[in-house]
Parts: sequence; C-alpha cells; structure tokens
Amino acid sequence: MENLKNKKVAILVTDGFEQSEFTEPKKAIENAGATVHVVSLISGKIKSWNDGNWGNEYDVDKTVDEVSVSDYDSLILPGGVINPDLLRNNKKAVEFVRSFAENKKPISAICHGPWLLAEAGILEGRKITSYSSIKTDMINAGANWVDEEVVVDSGLTTSRNPDDLPAFCKKIVEEIAEGKHEEMSESV
Amino acid sequence: MENLKNKKVAILVTDGFEQSEFTEPKKAIENAGATVHVVSLISGKIKSWNDGNWGNEYDVDKTVDEVSVSDYDSLILPGGVINPDLLRNNKKAVEFVRSFAENKKPISAICHGPWLLAEAGILEGRKITSYSSIKTDMINAGANWVDEEVVVDSGLTTSRNPDDLPAFCKKIVEEIAEGKHEEMSESV
Repeated sequence: MENLKNKKVAILVTDGFEQSEFTEPKKAIENAGATVHVVSLISGKIKSWNDGNWGNEYDVDKTVDEVSVSDYDSLILPGGVINPDLLRNNKKAVEFVRSFAENKKPISAICHGPWLLAEAGILEGRKITSYSSIKTDMINAGANWVDEEVVVDSGLTTSRNPDDLPAFCKKIVEEIAEGKHEEMSESV
Repeated sequence: MENLKNKKVAILVTDGFEQSEFTEPKKAIENAGATVHVVSLISGKIKSWNDGNWGNEYDVDKTVDEVSVSDYDSLILPGGVINPDLLRNNKKAVEFVRSFAENKKPISAICHGPWLLAEAGILEGRKITSYSSIKTDMINAGANWVDEEVVVDSGLTTSRNPDDLPAFCKKIVEEIAEGKHEEMSESV
C-alpha cells in the first residue's frame, strides 16, 4: 500500500454524483493515509445518485469559495450525470479544476466527471477515457479518447464507469503518491 | 395560428426528459393541427423529470427501430440532463436525428437537447443556443453559440431552458409550417 500520510486531496462534487464513484475512491485514499476534503458549491449536505434515483447524503467540508489549489496535493472528480452538469456551470468550480492542471498536480476523473476537464479547457492532446455517452464531447475538446478501464497520462487518471472502480482506485493512489507531474500541460 | 394539419412530427425522448419541455411543444403543435408521435428507445412508458425529481409517465408511440425520417416532417428534442445523455448513447437515435438534417427537415432542440445535435455531428457553423452548462460542448462541436431565448438558423430552432418555452413553441410552429429548409447543411 502506498503511503499518502502527508497528502491532502479534494473531491469536488455536488448533488447527483454517482455514489460509488465518491465513496470508493475516498475510502481507497483514506486507507492509504490521505486527508480528504469534500468540496462543493455550498456548505451543508450533498445528495448522491444511486441505482437510478437520489441516494445518500454526505457532509461538505469546504465550499469552492473557501479552497485554493495550494491547499491540496490532488483532485478527484466523480461522475453521475447531474453532478458535473451543475459543477461546470460554476466559474469557481471550473477554475479550481483548471488550477490543478496549471500546477501539475494529479487529477482523477471517472464516468461523466471528465466533462469538467472539457469545461476547464485542459484536454487538448491528452489521452483519456470517460463514460461512453460523452466520448464525442471529449474528442471535440481535443482529447485522444480510448476505451480502456483506466488511462493514465502524466498525472491525469480517467476511467469509464463504476465497474472500473477497482482499477481506478489503485491508479489514483499511485498517482497521488508520485506527486507533481512535470509533464502536465503548461499551456492551459 | 399556423395550420399544421398535414404535418407529422416526432418528439424523441427517453427517461429523464424535462416534463414541460415535452408537454408544451407537444400541445402547441397539436393545437396547430399536427400529428405527434412520441419516439423512444423502447416501447411502453417513459418517465419525465420535473422539479428536481422523477415526474409523470407518458406513452411511447414508436421506438427508434420502427421509424424513419420519411415518416415525419419535423423533429423535436426536449432537454433534461439524463434524457439526451441516454439517447446519444444509442446509434439508431443519433442516426434518426442526423437524418432530419440530411433531409433538410426542421429540427428543434431546447435546454440539454442540443447535446444530440453535437452527437449527430450537425452543428458545424450553425448558430444556436442551449442550456448554459453545455455551451462549451456546443462550441467545441463547431456551433456559433449565442445567449438568446430562441435562435432560428435555417430550420434549426434552439432555446435555453423552460423559461424560453413560449418563444420556442411559437417559433417551432412557424418553422414546421414552412417545411423543408434548403439552406440546411448537406454535408453532415
């Protein structure tokens, strides 16, 4: 098991995130010793999406107004259809995502989470995967889209859907342990 | 009131369509005399989205396997976040959308409905609007995106959200009455 004892990781989510795509990566990196903050648009509680309906509620630790990339070593973006659609409409949330790429800190996104990478304009020339329905949006945003359970491109880790979670969780622990990735695009 | 008495119109929807974006255009064109078919991925009933939760159920008239562009004079694409995300993952649904552009028949899309236009690859150089969250996907698909309540570009009518429904419904009745639009792109 990698040691993430001194790592702080932000999970950016709002209502409608796919429950397992939040709980499983969170558990994996907490088990490896990382401190995790749930970052959202407003304080209070956020509601997951699970099995085709609203799921459990979870506490928000910080709002996007209260955080900076300098507070964290890495960012995780769960999917769910509704969640990234709400987040990408918020300028501070999108800037928070972009700032991780600008600072070469590892970003991990699964399912519909990569919509936020398109919104942040950080996909040009990057090799990624995503949920199949948004493949066209990813290609139109400049990504080299492939159909694999997990794709790592210099600090950017992506997966397709909840079935890929074991591979996704394993890789994000490795990538966070490695730290900054100097190969991450500077011109974002 | 325009006379749509001899017009047949398909509304393409599946679970998660925004209820008012289905019922109001349907009522407007039926009041003008058109015959409307609810086309979906499978037969039976489909469930709307309303006020942040699952809404009413509606009957499907035809599945995408049973229809052809030659059966209809026009196509309407309601929004809702979940609905177009499911439809764009279905090859027959996407080909059905594309075939209306290829045959220069009016297409109307509101809110998240334009995601299907991006999926069908028919947005290059077209002036459109959409729900604000998908603006980036529309621009990346080649569209000239503007923030107006309703945009008509040679047979392609688009609006932003349910508040725009009065303007949207008025325009789609006019566009369907006009019939084929020879200016619609041939190279799709």
